Formats: sequence, structure tokens, C-alpha cells
Amino acid sequence: MSVITDTIRNGVNTEQMFGTLDLIKAQPELARFQFRATNRWINGAHNRSTIQNFYAAGGEDTSRSQAFALDAGEPAILLGSDTGANPAEYLLHALAACLTTSIVYVAAARRVHLTSVQSTLTGDMDVRGALGVDDEPRNGFERIGVSFRVTGNAPEDKLREVVERAQKRSAVYDMVTNGVPVAVEVTTH
Amino acid sequence: MSVITDTIRNGVNTEQMFGTLDLIKAQPELARFQFRATNRWINGAHNRSTIQNFYAAGGEDTSRSQAFALDAGEPAILLGSDTGANPAEYLLHALAACLTTSIVYVAAARRVHLTSVQSTLTGDMDVRGALGVDDEPRNGFERIGVSFRVTGNAPEDKLREVVERAQKRSAVYDMVTNGVPVAVEVTTH
Repeated sequence: MSVITDTIRNGVNTEQMFGTLDLIKAQPELARFQFRATNRWINGAHNRSTIQNFYAAGGEDTSRSQAFALDAGEPAILLGSDTGANPAEYLLHALAACLTTSIVYVAAARRVHLTSVQSTLTGDMDVRGALGVDDEPRNGFERIGVSFRVTGNAPEDKLREVVERAQKRSAVYDMVTNGVPVAVEVTTH
Repeated sequence: MSVITDTIRNGVNTEQMFGTLDLIKAQPELARFQFRATNRWINGAHNRSTIQNFYAAGGEDTSRSQAFALDAGEPAILLGSDTGANPAEYLLHALAACLTTSIVYVAAARRVHLTSVQSTLTGDMDVRGALGVDDEPRNGFERIGVSFRVTGNAPEDKLREVVERAQKRSAVYDMVTNGVPVAVEVTTH
């Protein structure tokens, strides 16, 4: 039992984690991943993404037995019928989820047993930009606020250090704060 | 019937759309919105966001009768058990959904009847960054590719113009390409 207790921390298999890190250090070419989503318009503000396979560690990963289906929508005030969270809300979720998983993994690596991780995210937007009413406000959020409450069996300093390290390593935090080049191509037949 | 056909285009109520635009032009202070997500860690890479109310048009919008619950996870190779799409995949979905809705709304405003909008998004990542193995690769996607297929009752030029305009107005496209300032605060008790 003590072996299991030592290996699985915060629900993360740390033996597997350190094994993966060693493997990638030895063979950096295995670190090339590609994630994907395919999306289809349904009606009005309702569209759906399907997410399943991805490229990882030198080959196509087909281990997911079924696809994830994600429905987007807009509330009535933005001309939809709430068929799902709206795209900007999905971005907040992506950021919350990535920071949270980063906190959990960093804590596991540093022998911190967490008891809870909760967060509230807010994004402030002047919708004149996205609606095309005025060119001055940007289209997206002007700012995002993230408020974490993290508890666990470590002193406050250690818990704060875990959050800081997680922020420095989060993929979505990097993308949302620094931006990513996006290339769009279109066919019409 | 012809009135209904003229007003609802691509599933979008264009009368309501133009009414909203006029109202926001007249009272720009109504354009201040705030979207939110609250997230709770469950175990390992599994966490869940809850999304419901938001601030819009001068007051709290409580019109959604229930919250959207979004589960995040990681595949086995990233130490999870596929409890949901992973955070980076959610970001691709947010981008796909926002561009698609923008295309649908812009087309509705320009009297273009769409028959289909489909897209495939890819995000390329060297996971050495996010895993903390190497400081050189960035944590997030190096680039995102978006491939749209858009069909409708308009010439190719017009359809391409709709996609270009949508790109210029999409909230998530703006955030993902340009970045957003994110402020993180932490409590530990």
C-alpha cells in the first residue's frame, strides 16, 4: 500500500510522469504533438466540434475509443438559444482547466498533496468591437482575471510556488497571454 | 411567410440583430459584457468548469435556466484518463466555434444564405516546454492551422469576403492571435 500511496499523488501516477520526462529528455523528437478539432455549423450560433485522435510521441494516437462532442452557442442577447457555452466562455474554461491541471501535476512532482483547487475566471469585453459597431474596442477580452483557491498539506509559500511554476508551464496560459500565429485557409466548393 | 424568410437568415434573427446594433450605437455603455467560468479540480487531470450567468447590457443576465458543465481531461500519454478533451483542444474548439458563428452572423447581415460551414483546426506543440524538460520550446502551440469549407448561395468572392470579415471581428481569433493580459491571484486557506 505504501508504494501505491507514494506513486499516485493527486491522482497522478508520478512514476509514469518521471518515466515520460526521462524518455522525452533522451528522445526529444517524441515531444512533437499535434492536437485537432473538426467543427460543423448546425444552425444560427449552434455549432459542434468533434475531438478524438491526435499525433503524439512519433505516431498517431488512436487510444480514445470515442470522440468528444462539444456544442457551442450564444445566449439570447447575442442572438442564440443557449445551445452551449459561447466561444469566449470556452476560452475561459480552456485557461482554467490548463492552469488547474498544471497546478495538480507540479504539486504531484513536488510531493505536495492537494486537498482542493478552485478558480473563478472573468473576462471583460466591450462587444462593440466584435459586433463591428466601433473599431476602437478590441474584439476579445480586454483583460482576464483568474482567482485561485488552493489548499493542501504544504505551507502557504510552497503552495504559492506551485501555482507560480504551473503558470510558467501552462500551455493555454502561454497561448492566451502571448498569442499564437493562426493561418486560415478557405475553400468554397 | 415571406416576412419570416426575410428576417431569419442562417438561423439568425436579422431584425433582432440590426435592432441590437442600433441600440448599442445609441447607448455604447450597454456594450460592456463580462463572461465567467468557475472551475473545480476533481482528480488528476480531471476538472470541471461551470458556466451560467454573465453581465451584459447594463445588468446581470440570469436568463440561462441551467449551467453548462464542461469536463476537461488528458489522454493516457499525458497522464490522464480521457475524462474530457484536454485544455489545448478546448482552445481549438473555442477558436473554431467563434470563427464559425462570426461567419454565420456576417453572412446573415449580408444576405448570404449559407448551406454549410465546416472546419478542421490543428495545433502543433513541442511538449518539452509545457513539461518543463526544456526552456527553449514555448509551452503552447507554435502555430494553429484553420481550414474552412464554406458553401452558400453566393459567388466564391463573396463567400471569401464573409470569412475575411468574420476573422476581423471574431473575439476568440483576436484573443488567440494577439493575446490578452491575464491577472492571477491566489489564496491558500
